[in-house]
Amino acid sequence: MVLHALRATDCATLTEVTRVTGLSRPTVEGVVEGLMEAGLVVETAADEGTARRQGRPARRFRFRAEAGHLLGLEIGPHRVAALLSDLDGRVLGAQAKEVDETAPADERLDRLRGAVAELLRRAGVARGSLRAVGVGTPGIVGSDGTVRLSTALPQWTGLKLADRLSRSFKCPVLVENDANAAAVAEHWKGAATETDDVVFVLAGLSPGAGSLIGGRLHRGYGGAAGEIGALHLLGREVTPETLLSTTDQPLHPLDEQAVAEVFALARDGDQRARAAVERFIQRLVHDVAALVLALDPELVVIGGWAAGLDGVLEPLRRELDRYCLRPPRVALSLLGEAAVATGALRLALDHVEEQLFAVDGTVTARR
Amino acid sequence: MVLHALRATDCATLTEVTRVTGLSRPTVEGVVEGLMEAGLVVETAADEGTARRQGRPARRFRFRAEAGHLLGLEIGPHRVAALLSDLDGRVLGAQAKEVDETAPADERLDRLRGAVAELLRRAGVARGSLRAVGVGTPGIVGSDGTVRLSTALPQWTGLKLADRLSRSFKCPVLVENDANAAAVAEHWKGAATETDDVVFVLAGLSPGAGSLIGGRLHRGYGGAAGEIGALHLLGREVTPETLLSTTDQPLHPLDEQAVAEVFALARDGDQRARAAVERFIQRLVHDVAALVLALDPELVVIGGWAAGLDGVLEPLRRELDRYCLRPPRVALSLLGEAAVATGALRLALDHVEEQLFAVDGTVTARR
Repeated sequence: MVLHALRATDCATLTEVTRVTGLSRPTVEGVVEGLMEAGLVVETAADEGTARRQGRPARRFRFRAEAGHLLGLEIGPHRVAALLSDLDGRVLGAQAKEVDETAPADERLDRLRGAVAELLRRAGVARGSLRAVGVGTPGIVGSDGTVRLSTALPQWTGLKLADRLSRSFKCPVLVENDANAAAVAEHWKGAATETDDVVFVLAGLSPGAGSLIGGRLHRGYGGAAGEIGALHLLGREVTPETLLSTTDQPLHPLDEQAVAEVFALARDGDQRARAAVERFIQRLVHDVAALVLALDPELVVIGGWAAGLDGVLEPLRRELDRYCLRPPRVALSLLGEAAVATGALRLALDHVEEQLFAVDGTVTARR
Repeated sequence: MVLHALRATDCATLTEVTRVTGLSRPTVEGVVEGLMEAGLVVETAADEGTARRQGRPARRFRFRAEAGHLLGLEIGPHRVAALLSDLDGRVLGAQAKEVDETAPADERLDRLRGAVAELLRRAGVARGSLRAVGVGTPGIVGSDGTVRLSTALPQWTGLKLADRLSRSFKCPVLVENDANAAAVAEHWKGAATETDDVVFVLAGLSPGAGSLIGGRLHRGYGGAAGEIGALHLLGREVTPETLLSTTDQPLHPLDEQAVAEVFALARDGDQRARAAVERFIQRLVHDVAALVLALDPELVVIGGWAAGLDGVLEPLRRELDRYCLRPPRVALSLLGEAAVATGALRLALDHVEEQLFAVDGTVTARR
């Protein structure tokens, strides 16, 4: 409670903490002392305070957000990315590197380690200061951080990703499905801050989704919730690769460049491209409708590379209004390509907050 | 805790309750006295006990499951049904009546009231003994017991169902979507007792589904979760009425008799009927796959009138294995047409248990 109170303000006096927490003065004094010993709280210099009153000014304390650091990592088909934050979740720096979609697992992890090393060096943060690392990556991820199944990245299925990354970090490494991480991110600081019931759709040639129900991530019994990429196969429709093709050849499933060109052509009025985009939107509507009918969220957020595209929202809204008994609101991702790493960072922050408040509980209990 | 302990056994001594609950003897004595005053616990006759030892036998107490009664009601397109139970949820009687699918709301409710009156009379239970009434019915049901939207029953959309039924009962009336109620029932005493993550599919010409996530009903933000009946429309597939037709005329959407005949013909080898059943199964597979991909349950239970049909499970399992990244187990409903009323009864029981344990808390706090 004391840590909560101190984190919620820049700095506070013991009297203020006592008032906010409802705890007794001696308890607050004891807890603050314990938190100072743990390096989590520091007394601010007296002349920093704005309220120098008559006589000796009251001592003021603040949470030391700089006492530790967090990483949010994304490992995707085309790029690896890293976000660094302090214990308040304030982002201190970001680093991304391109990686070839055919890169083997070792090379992909090396690229990621390189990005992290650069990021830490630039920010002047020691590796030992890291308290938790979150990771978002495509596929079904087990609770032990093993990738159970991933069709998007080479050598990814079966990879003990948390174990592998733990060799680079002394702190806990938490691995999450990329769409799940993005859903958490949009809820934290994106398009879904106002609701606890949201489906995030990572649109792409093989879409995935992440859902929050009552503010909590819904992973499903086996961690596969939202893996709707296979749904179209049941409808005997065309495969994703032919869906957006304007030639007789299918697009490469991960060729975002080619996809962007098709969308650009469509905007310029090219008939064949417009038809392809129309097919893509129909597919997206169908996938989103399946999620909406199954889950009934308040809000659907569309992200992934489709997020930058014009004209996805309106047909989506129109079709959902037609077919859903209670259509949800539909919005574009506000975080764009930062969504996955931001969500991974939030998961790391959640983990550290649990730890911090456990420390808090121990300190309180001891006194 | 005392009530829990007494409900878990036929009867128990104060010593046994003290041991099981970990409470002090005087506390247990006080609580048991309070529960006897409330009519919820009674001392069993001394010679009933099996353990007459040396000297005066220990007093034995039991929970009075007969101290109140519960109703579980189903209001469907073709029938209304009622289940009566005691406070342990033990079913004391059942009553069902046919009702025309075109019957207006008043007539449908009259049929239900008739069934309830007959059931209570036959069981010799006074109406005033009812502690809660659960109701399962098709449609999106608001938390106030109003049917927000229902396409299956005439005059049902907008009906303040809980209010209307409250005129017949002095106790709380809880209204739930029928597929949701059935999911609760299969989890309570059907095919899903071993899992907390289950999707129940009420198969029919317009299928609906109910889901438990972590043992709790997932209603969705607006109570519309699982209303997947509209999904096929997006695939531009045939409507449900033409799907199972073996003539050039569509089946009536609620004509279960005609549907049963098509399935019987298919079993007898009629080619046209077999093709129709094949189309139906493909539709069901598609709907179930959408739910499974969105939610990732451990188990899917198929109920509704499809539950009596041969040959649905195998194709479902085969197709789900093909298309789902982590296919769930698939089972048929064990409760059949009793599922909805049984789930409604369980919801009434949940409500009463909350009340009972609130009473328990008050008694404990007072002493």
